[in-house]
Amino acid sequence: MGELKGNGVVAQSGGPTAVINASACGIIQEAEKHDCIERIYGARNGILGILHEELLDIGKEKPETIEGLKWTPAAALGSCRYKLKSLEESRADYERILEVFRAHNIRYFFYAGGNDSMDTADKVNKLAAEEGYELRVMGIPKTIDNDLACTDHCPGYGSVAKFVATTAMEAGRDTEALYTSDTATVMETMGRNAGWIAASTGVAHRSPEDAPHLIYLPEVPFSIERFVQDVKDVIAQIGRCFIVAGEGLVDASGKYITEQAGGFGVDAFGHKQLGGIAETLKSIVETEVGVKCRYIKLSTAQRNAMHFASLTDRDEAYLAGAEAVRQAVAGTSSKMVTLVRESSSPYECTTGLAELLDVANGEKILPREFINEAGNHITEAMKDYVIPLMQGEVPVEIGADGLPVYSRLEAYLLPKLTTRNYSAK
Amino acid sequence: MGELKGNGVVAQSGGPTAVINASACGIIQEAEKHDCIERIYGARNGILGILHEELLDIGKEKPETIEGLKWTPAAALGSCRYKLKSLEESRADYERILEVFRAHNIRYFFYAGGNDSMDTADKVNKLAAEEGYELRVMGIPKTIDNDLACTDHCPGYGSVAKFVATTAMEAGRDTEALYTSDTATVMETMGRNAGWIAASTGVAHRSPEDAPHLIYLPEVPFSIERFVQDVKDVIAQIGRCFIVAGEGLVDASGKYITEQAGGFGVDAFGHKQLGGIAETLKSIVETEVGVKCRYIKLSTAQRNAMHFASLTDRDEAYLAGAEAVRQAVAGTSSKMVTLVRESSSPYECTTGLAELLDVANGEKILPREFINEAGNHITEAMKDYVIPLMQGEVPVEIGADGLPVYSRLEAYLLPKLTTRNYSAK
Repeated sequence: MGELKGNGVVAQSGGPTAVINASACGIIQEAEKHDCIERIYGARNGILGILHEELLDIGKEKPETIEGLKWTPAAALGSCRYKLKSLEESRADYERILEVFRAHNIRYFFYAGGNDSMDTADKVNKLAAEEGYELRVMGIPKTIDNDLACTDHCPGYGSVAKFVATTAMEAGRDTEALYTSDTATVMETMGRNAGWIAASTGVAHRSPEDAPHLIYLPEVPFSIERFVQDVKDVIAQIGRCFIVAGEGLVDASGKYITEQAGGFGVDAFGHKQLGGIAETLKSIVETEVGVKCRYIKLSTAQRNAMHFASLTDRDEAYLAGAEAVRQAVAGTSSKMVTLVRESSSPYECTTGLAELLDVANGEKILPREFINEAGNHITEAMKDYVIPLMQGEVPVEIGADGLPVYSRLEAYLLPKLTTRNYSAK
Repeated sequence: MGELKGNGVVAQSGGPTAVINASACGIIQEAEKHDCIERIYGARNGILGILHEELLDIGKEKPETIEGLKWTPAAALGSCRYKLKSLEESRADYERILEVFRAHNIRYFFYAGGNDSMDTADKVNKLAAEEGYELRVMGIPKTIDNDLACTDHCPGYGSVAKFVATTAMEAGRDTEALYTSDTATVMETMGRNAGWIAASTGVAHRSPEDAPHLIYLPEVPFSIERFVQDVKDVIAQIGRCFIVAGEGLVDASGKYITEQAGGFGVDAFGHKQLGGIAETLKSIVETEVGVKCRYIKLSTAQRNAMHFASLTDRDEAYLAGAEAVRQAVAGTSSKMVTLVRESSSPYECTTGLAELLDVANGEKILPREFINEAGNHITEAMKDYVIPLMQGEVPVEIGADGLPVYSRLEAYLLPKLTTRNYSAK
């Protein structure tokens, strides 16, 4: 494969994570080492930035701003939830992407995201080949949900795991201290189809005293009756109960529990409100168990908690970004960088490559052996899997006000070179 | 005042904080230096532990367990929400407290709590004097709400402030990254009657870009119409909006907004569900502004976030505990230790004393000059007040699993010496 000279573009897609900016930093800093990547751009707000030709001139940013991305959560380039469909259905979008690439001589496309993004990247790669436009497309795994196929784990997961497990431990101490009045607590975690995040909190359960005492996962059909009995049993044993629930719990027929329980009726404006799983389980505990139940919804706070993020996760996120550049420069295309666990003890991780299409079409849910027999907690195998991913803390710059100092790009927009406006639908 | 020989008891009351155990540690470690305090006990679950004669023999705990309290959140002795009323109404309870004190020769009573606890401590002190039982009663301020009178600020507040401000900053970056789809976010903070916690998040707003863009406080009558306009204005300016709301927002007539908006009707079990302010404002934003709004309820996680607690707060919590012992040994009684700000820049803080009754009968809400004119954000004066309280991070021991290691008492129960069982109602 010969040298390909041209510009590169980085895009970030979907829900932010604590470390997706570390991947971007890895891409940018590595790209600077390779003369064949003449300039490196950022797509503003993910694929929308390419469709709308809103490209950021990363080279104009101060080096310390780029360096600060190593400890800056969320998506510094901006992200979006815009989803491209098949080449047939979304042909105009794919053509537009190539149009913008051609206009800016973009020959390297680095796309950090989940399986939808890998699907998009694969189709861009195919269309470019079809049209004879030489382009190297590399995917960088990113999802707190940890549900991507072909990789041992995903950058972003270790950090959310470390934070939610710590929070379960800490809020569990609150329930322990106040059990005479506030006997139960439910904490909801993200992860609609896969229970990886909820399961990671099980590490905090070092002894029977320690929260969480019960963990419910989307992989296990949820029964309200069994849940009520579980909570009663734990309270009978230790006087209190701290529960973790993945947001997407379903019953045996696959129906969301939040729907089954009827949500919270209509609000003052006449709109139907579907409560989250935390509110639903709180309501069940108070009604059926008869004790006061608090609930915690960390929501987006959990995936941006850089103030206590995993150093291992951050370093691997950077590595995945840098490796994508090295691979692309060496001629690889249409691949996603994977994380390969060479050994768990001592933990060793290297990178590999997977076909974009295999990642796009796959999904990795929690294996049954990571879940206990009763389906309400995790096993030692799950702990062995996740503990190496939560090691170390990311050093964060702290300002004079006692709060973290995070980077923000100046975001220098490039002049538009295409002659038409394009509006993504 | 002559030397008073006898035992001491520590009790923790009400909602836990990140640093109430640091105060307990200060009491215990200081008490060991004074021979007149022969043994130091802990009341299990606050005042309930005294009423039920469930006293813990702190002297039997390992010194490293006690030392670990300096970085252990929640209430290691246990807490409760049991409220004693006036001496007339709750006479039996007060008599019982003295009965237990007499049985164990307890001459020093250290009570960490809020204004209700200071009221209880005051009455115990009065009854002891009435009955000629020599007792020294000292209060130690504790409340994340920061609403105690007579003290510049309260141990527990600086840590919750640091954590919620950081979380607003981080989750704000999520809203910034995803504004094209998830345009608004509401974060609910604790503090039902006083807006100190919500207000502290304003420190994260270093520039117009930075969250939170709007802050609503219980001190300012809330208008739904004005709120809707505020959110629209912010979105018009910067394309997104991150909102912080204290849990106890009221309208001009003093009625809770959560009630006014009708909450969430009845749940599947026919129980009326009163949504929190986060759900209520989310619903208003989605309906009246027409953009997607996420919501975050940190709930008890915010007051136990030792993994990013304020070192200044922790050190002052320890100091307040130790000072209570020094004062009691020197003959002081019926006082609460206060924190006195000698100077803001550079920050200097010493301790003082306040009458328990003055603290019991007071309340400190956010002064008007700490709130901006529009009533939807804070002023520089508020920043100057709170920033010194959020300085430094508490060093926390991290285990091999990557999570904090917190202390837990063995909790050695003393044999009961009173001849009757007493049940707190």
